[in-house]
Amino acid sequence: MRTVSIETGTTKHAEGSCLIKVGDTQVICTASLEERVPPFIKGSGLGWVTAEYGMLPRSTGSRMRREATSGKQGGRTVEIQRLIGRSLRAGVDRVALGERQITIDCDVIQADGGTRCASITGGWVALRLAVNKLMKAGDVKTDPLVSPVAAVSCGIYAGQPILDLDYPEDSEAGVDGNFILRGDGQLIEVQMSAEGATFSRAQMSELMDLAEKGVAQLVEAQKAAVA
Amino acid sequence: MRTVSIETGTTKHAEGSCLIKVGDTQVICTASLEERVPPFIKGSGLGWVTAEYGMLPRSTGSRMRREATSGKQGGRTVEIQRLIGRSLRAGVDRVALGERQITIDCDVIQADGGTRCASITGGWVALRLAVNKLMKAGDVKTDPLVSPVAAVSCGIYAGQPILDLDYPEDSEAGVDGNFILRGDGQLIEVQMSAEGATFSRAQMSELMDLAEKGVAQLVEAQKAAVA
Amino acid sequence: MRTVSIETGTTKHAEGSCLIKVGDTQVICTASLEERVPPFIKGSGLGWVTAEYGMLPRSTGSRMRREATSGKQGGRTVEIQRLIGRSLRAGVDRVALGERQITIDCDVIQADGGTRCASITGGWVALRLAVNKLMKAGDVKTDPLVSPVAAVSCGIYAGQPILDLDYPEDSEAGVDGNFILRGDGQLIEVQMSAEGATFSRAQMSELMDLAEKGVAQLVEAQKAAVA
Amino acid sequence: MRTVSIETGTTKHAEGSCLIKVGDTQVICTASLEERVPPFIKGSGLGWVTAEYGMLPRSTGSRMRREATSGKQGGRTVEIQRLIGRSLRAGVDRVALGERQITIDCDVIQADGGTRCASITGGWVALRLAVNKLMKAGDVKTDPLVSPVAAVSCGIYAGQPILDLDYPEDSEAGVDGNFILRGDGQLIEVQMSAEGATFSRAQMSELMDLAEKGVAQLVEAQKAAVA
Amino acid sequence: MRTVSIETGTTKHAEGSCLIKVGDTQVICTASLEERVPPFIKGSGLGWVTAEYGMLPRSTGSRMRREATSGKQGGRTVEIQRLIGRSLRAGVDRVALGERQITIDCDVIQADGGTRCASITGGWVALRLAVNKLMKAGDVKTDPLVSPVAAVSCGIYAGQPILDLDYPEDSEAGVDGNFILRGDGQLIEVQMSAEGATFSRAQMSELMDLAEKGVAQLVEAQKAAVA
Amino acid sequence: MRTVSIETGTTKHAEGSCLIKVGDTQVICTASLEERVPPFIKGSGLGWVTAEYGMLPRSTGSRMRREATSGKQGGRTVEIQRLIGRSLRAGVDRVALGERQITIDCDVIQADGGTRCASITGGWVALRLAVNKLMKAGDVKTDPLVSPVAAVSCGIYAGQPILDLDYPEDSEAGVDGNFILRGDGQLIEVQMSAEGATFSRAQMSELMDLAEKGVAQLVEAQKAAVA
Repeated sequence: MRTVSIETGTTKHAEGSCLIKVGDTQVICTASLEERVPPFIKGSGLGWVTAEYGMLPRSTGSRMRREATSGKQGGRTVEIQRLIGRSLRAGVDRVALGERQITIDCDVIQADGGTRCASITGGWVALRLAVNKLMKAGDVKTDPLVSPVAAVSCGIYAGQPILDLDYPEDSEAGVDGNFILRGDGQLIEVQMSAEGATFSRAQMSELMDLAEKGVAQLVEAQKAAVA
Repeated sequence: MRTVSIETGTTKHAEGSCLIKVGDTQVICTASLEERVPPFIKGSGLGWVTAEYGMLPRSTGSRMRREATSGKQGGRTVEIQRLIGRSLRAGVDRVALGERQITIDCDVIQADGGTRCASITGGWVALRLAVNKLMKAGDVKTDPLVSPVAAVSCGIYAGQPILDLDYPEDSEAGVDGNFILRGDGQLIEVQMSAEGATFSRAQMSELMDLAEKGVAQLVEAQKAAVA
Repeated sequence: MRTVSIETGTTKHAEGSCLIKVGDTQVICTASLEERVPPFIKGSGLGWVTAEYGMLPRSTGSRMRREATSGKQGGRTVEIQRLIGRSLRAGVDRVALGERQITIDCDVIQADGGTRCASITGGWVALRLAVNKLMKAGDVKTDPLVSPVAAVSCGIYAGQPILDLDYPEDSEAGVDGNFILRGDGQLIEVQMSAEGATFSRAQMSELMDLAEKGVAQLVEAQKAAVA
Repeated sequence: MRTVSIETGTTKHAEGSCLIKVGDTQVICTASLEERVPPFIKGSGLGWVTAEYGMLPRSTGSRMRREATSGKQGGRTVEIQRLIGRSLRAGVDRVALGERQITIDCDVIQADGGTRCASITGGWVALRLAVNKLMKAGDVKTDPLVSPVAAVSCGIYAGQPILDLDYPEDSEAGVDGNFILRGDGQLIEVQMSAEGATFSRAQMSELMDLAEKGVAQLVEAQKAAVA
Repeated sequence: MRTVSIETGTTKHAEGSCLIKVGDTQVICTASLEERVPPFIKGSGLGWVTAEYGMLPRSTGSRMRREATSGKQGGRTVEIQRLIGRSLRAGVDRVALGERQITIDCDVIQADGGTRCASITGGWVALRLAVNKLMKAGDVKTDPLVSPVAAVSCGIYAGQPILDLDYPEDSEAGVDGNFILRGDGQLIEVQMSAEGATFSRAQMSELMDLAEKGVAQLVEAQKAAVA
Repeated sequence: MRTVSIETGTTKHAEGSCLIKVGDTQVICTASLEERVPPFIKGSGLGWVTAEYGMLPRSTGSRMRREATSGKQGGRTVEIQRLIGRSLRAGVDRVALGERQITIDCDVIQADGGTRCASITGGWVALRLAVNKLMKAGDVKTDPLVSPVAAVSCGIYAGQPILDLDYPEDSEAGVDGNFILRGDGQLIEVQMSAEGATFSRAQMSELMDLAEKGVAQLVEAQKAAVA
C-alpha cells in the first residue's frame, strides 16, 4: 500500500472538502449540499448522494483532451462517477439524511493509478464533513453515515497478487479490480476484470484478502482526517 | 435458470447472427467483419473485437426515449457495451485473428432482466459464426476463439441467493452481479454491486457457485447452436 | 409485389405490435400509448399519433453507424419518421381518439428496399391493435381509425414502371416514389423524386395505377392480420 | 401567382447571388464554388451541387429560435435543404461540370409561405451565374445546366385548388404540395401531402395543371434575371 | 470613416428593423419584443435587452461553415453577441422598460470589417423603433432609452492610427479595438487588443480621439434614421 | 493589491506548472508541450501558444454545473481562454519558438474574483518553465519569451477606482476591466466594460495608473517564482 494522506478543509466554499494523496495520485474531493433532491425521489422523504468525476487535462503523463471541449463525458468518466455515487450511498441511511442532496465532486489533480478508489475514499471524508455540519446545525438528528466507505484496487501483475497498483503496474496487469468495502468489513462492490487474460477463484480469494487489509488502513486514515 | 434458446442465421446480411432468448429477454446479436482495425493498433498485426448495445424503445414495460433522439448513449449503455467487448476479447487470440475487426451489435427486442448477460452469451455465438466463415475461406488459419464466453446474473433476493434474475427480481434485489466466465471455468469478469445494502464474502461465494452452474448450461446451449 | 406477411403480438410489453415482412425487408412496429399529449395541443381535446424510425446497425449489407453514437438522427431518418407520423394521422379521427398520444416505433431488423413503406403499413397494424385495446377498455367510444393506411414504393427501372422495388432495383432506379393511400383509395401522400433523371406526367400516371393495385393488396394483408 | 422579382449580384463575395421575392417571401440565394468534391465521388470526374437552407430568427411572425443556438438543424430544415440540392442536381450534367462543387445557400430574410420553392427558383439563378463565370473563364467547356429548374407550391384551400400559397393559405390548406419542374416541362419532384385530409387523383391532376402554369412563369423570370 | 446608411422597416414582421451599411459591411438588425423575461430577473420589475449575432455563410470572401450545421455557435460569435447585448443595455433604463424582453438579432449579409460595431449601431436603431412602438401603445410611459449607443473600430495599421477599419486593414492591423460610446460621450466598453504586437498609452489615447469623432457621426446617422 | 504567491512545480507530469494564489483565488496552471502545431500554421516555421480555462464545480460559493456534463463550454469560458492565449502570445517570439505548440491549462481551484487575470499571470510562469526546459535541452536557441506578461483587474466600486477586485467588489462594480501588460509596460489588451453604468476618459486614465502599478508587482512575483 502506498503512503496515504488526507488534508481536510482545502476549499473555503464547500460544505466538506479534502485533498487525498495515495502515492502520487492526488484528488480534490468536495461535498456540496442542496436542500432539494432529484425529481425521481421528490416527496419520498429520502436523501440522495451523487458524485461527479473529472481529471485536469495535464493530470496525466501526456495531456488529455478536456471533456468540456469534446462535448461530453467519456464512457470511462461516466462509469467511474456512477461507481463513486453508488458506493457512497451504500454507507448512507437515506431516511436519516432527509430530503436533501449532497454532490461529491472528485477532481484528479495528478494521476498515478487508482484515481477512482482514491475518489471514493476521499469522497467519503468530504461527505462526512458536510454531514457533520448538518448535524451541528441541528438539521439532521440521527447520523446518516452508518459506516465509512473506502476503496482499493488490486491486480495480478507478473503472476503476483498486488495491492494498490500505481499507473505502471496497472497498465501491465492483465487482471485487476476495485474493491469497495465498509469500515465493518461488509462488501459494497467488487469489480474484477481481465483484459487478454483470465483468473481463477483461488486468485480472486487472494486479492480479496489483500483488499480487506488495504481498506482497513484507509479507514484508519479517514478516521484520523475527520477527527 | 430460465429457458434458453439460441436461433442462428437470423439476418441475411451479417457475417454471424443469432436471436437469443433467456426467459422473456430477447436479443438480436450480429457480428460484422471489417478488414481494418482502430488506429491505436494499426500495424500491430493484432485483431480487435468490439461491441455496441441498444434497446428498442418499447422493449421495456414503459417506452424508453430512443438514444438517437436524446443525442447520446446513456451511461448505462456505455457501461454495458464496454463490458460486452471486454468480455468477448478475453476469449480471443488476437494474434490468430489477424489485423481485422469484428463488431458485435446486441439489440434488445424484449427486455425482462439480464439483457447484458444474454448479449454476451449470444454475442459469442455471432462471433463464432463469423470466425467460422473466416476460417472456411482460409483467411484465418488457427482458430482465434480459445474458449466460449458466457455470462449470467446472480443476486440476493428476499435473503436468498438467486440465479438468472428476471426483471421483477432484479428490481427488488439489493445485491446483484454479473459473472462472465469462459467455457473452461476461468473467470473473466465479476461485477458484484449493492444498492442500499451490503454483502459478505460467504454470500459472494454462494453466488459464484450458482454462476458456475448457470454458465455451464449456457455454454451447452452455445455449443448446440453453432454445431 | 413481393410476398407480404404480418405477424402480430410480437412483444409482450407494447399496447400493439407486429413484425411485418415485405420480401426480405423486416420491420418491428410497436404502438405505445400515453395518457398525455405534446404541449402544442394540450387542452384541445385532440389526440396525437407520432412515429419514430430506426435501423439496426447490421440491418443493411454493410454495417451502418448507430445513430445513438453519432449523436443525432440523420436527415433521412428524420424525413422518414415525419412521413410515417403524418401518414398515419391522415387515417385518424383525432377528436374520437381523445387527448392521448400513441407513438409508433418502426425498427428495421433487415433491410431490402421499401423500409419506410413497410413501416407505414405495419405501423398502422400496431396502431389498430392499440386502439382496439382502448375501445375494449371503454376508454374510447367511437373508432378513431377512419380507414386503413398503407404505402408502397414504385419507380422507373430500366425504362419500365416497377411496383415495390427491392434494394438493388431502388439503387438503380433514376425515378422512384412512395405512395401512401387509405383503404378507400383516397391519396394521403405522393412523393415522386428523380435523381439524375426526370419523368413525364404520363409516367407518373402509370406509377399511380400500380400503386393503387399494390396498396389494395397490402390493405387485405392488414385486415387479415388484425382480424 | 404572386408577383415575382429576382435581383442578381446582391453580394460581392459569392460566385453567383440573387435576392428572390415571391409576394412577401424574400430569400437570399448564393452560389459558392469550390475546386473539390465530397469524398464519396472523389476521383469520379463528376461534379456536385448541394444546398443549405436557413431562416433568420425574425423572418417569421413570431421570433424563431436560432438553429445555431439549439445545437442542430431541425427536421424541417434538413428536409428542405435535401430537396433543394436534389432538385437542382436534376438540371445539371455532372460530367460537364467536372470535379468541383457548388454550394447553394438559401437564407430566408422574410417568410410568407413557399420559402422552399422560392429557394429552388432563386437557387437556380445563383447556380446559373456561378456556372456562367466558370464558362467565361474557360474552366468548363460544355454548359452543364441542361434546363432551368423552378418550383411552385399548390394546395387545396377551402375546397379550391390554389397556386402559390401564401402563409395564411398554407396554414389552412389540408392538402398541399410542391412541384419541381424543369423548363422543358419534365417533372423532377412531386410532393403532395395531406394533414388531417386526403385527396383524389382528379384533384391531383388539377393541381399539376396549375403547377405547370406557375413554373412556366417562374422560368420566364429566371431567364430575364440572368439575361 | 466609411459611408454609413441606415434603412429602417426592412422586415414586416419585426417590432423594429433596419439594414445598416458601413462601407461594404451590411447587417440586418431586428428587434423582437416578448412580454416575458429570463428566469433570473422574473418578478424584479426590470426589463431585459439581449442580442444574437450570425453571419450568412457567404457573407465572407470564402464560404464559412453554417453554425447550425456545426452544432454550436463558435467562440467569436458568442463573444460578439454578449458584447452587443451588454452594450445596448448600458443605454437602457431597465426600470422604465418594465418586465419585458427585447431580443436584437444582427445577421451579417455582407462582411467587410467592423461587423460587430455595425451590429451595435444598427441594433440600437431597431431597439429604438421597437421602444417607440411600445410608447405609442402606452405600454411604456417613460422613455427607457437614456441615450443612443454606437460603436466604431479603430486600429494601428502600418504604424498609423486608423478609424473604422475595413477587412483588409483589420487583417493587417497588429493592434485594433472596438469603442462603444453613448451619444453623450460617456464610455460603455473599450476593447483594445494586440495580436503579435503591443501598444502604448499614447497610442491608445490617439485611437480614443478618433473613436469619439467616429461615434459622433454614427449617432447623427442613427438620429436621422429614426426621425 | 491582494497578497500574491506563486508555487512552481506543482505537478510532476507537466513541462511547466504552478499554483498561483491572488488573495483567495487559486489557479493551477500547467504548460504542455507538443512537437506539432495546428493545421493553419503547419509548415510555417512558427510556434503556437494556446490556452484552456476551467473551474472546478465547487470553486465557487454555490456549486456550478460541470461544463463536461452540459455538453459544451459556456460563453464566458470561451471568452476567457481566448483572452489568455492571445495575451500570452503577445509576449512570444513565435519564430524563435519554432514549429511546436505549448498549451496552457488554467484550472480554478478556488474562486474569489480575478480568475482570468490570475490565469494569465500564472500561465506565463508555467510557460516560462516549459520554455526553460526546451532551452536547456537545446531544442530552442534564442529565448522566445520577449517579456513577462501579467494581468490585473480594476474597477469603479462605490465611486472609487479599485485595484484587483475580489468577488464581492467585482459583483458590485458597475464598471470594471482587465489590463494585460508586458513587463516593459507596453499594453497588450485593455477590456473596460460597464453593466448598467458608464465611465469617462478621466476615470479610465485613473484605472490605467492603478493597473500599471499592480502589474509591476505581479511581474516581480513572476520573476521570483521562476528564478
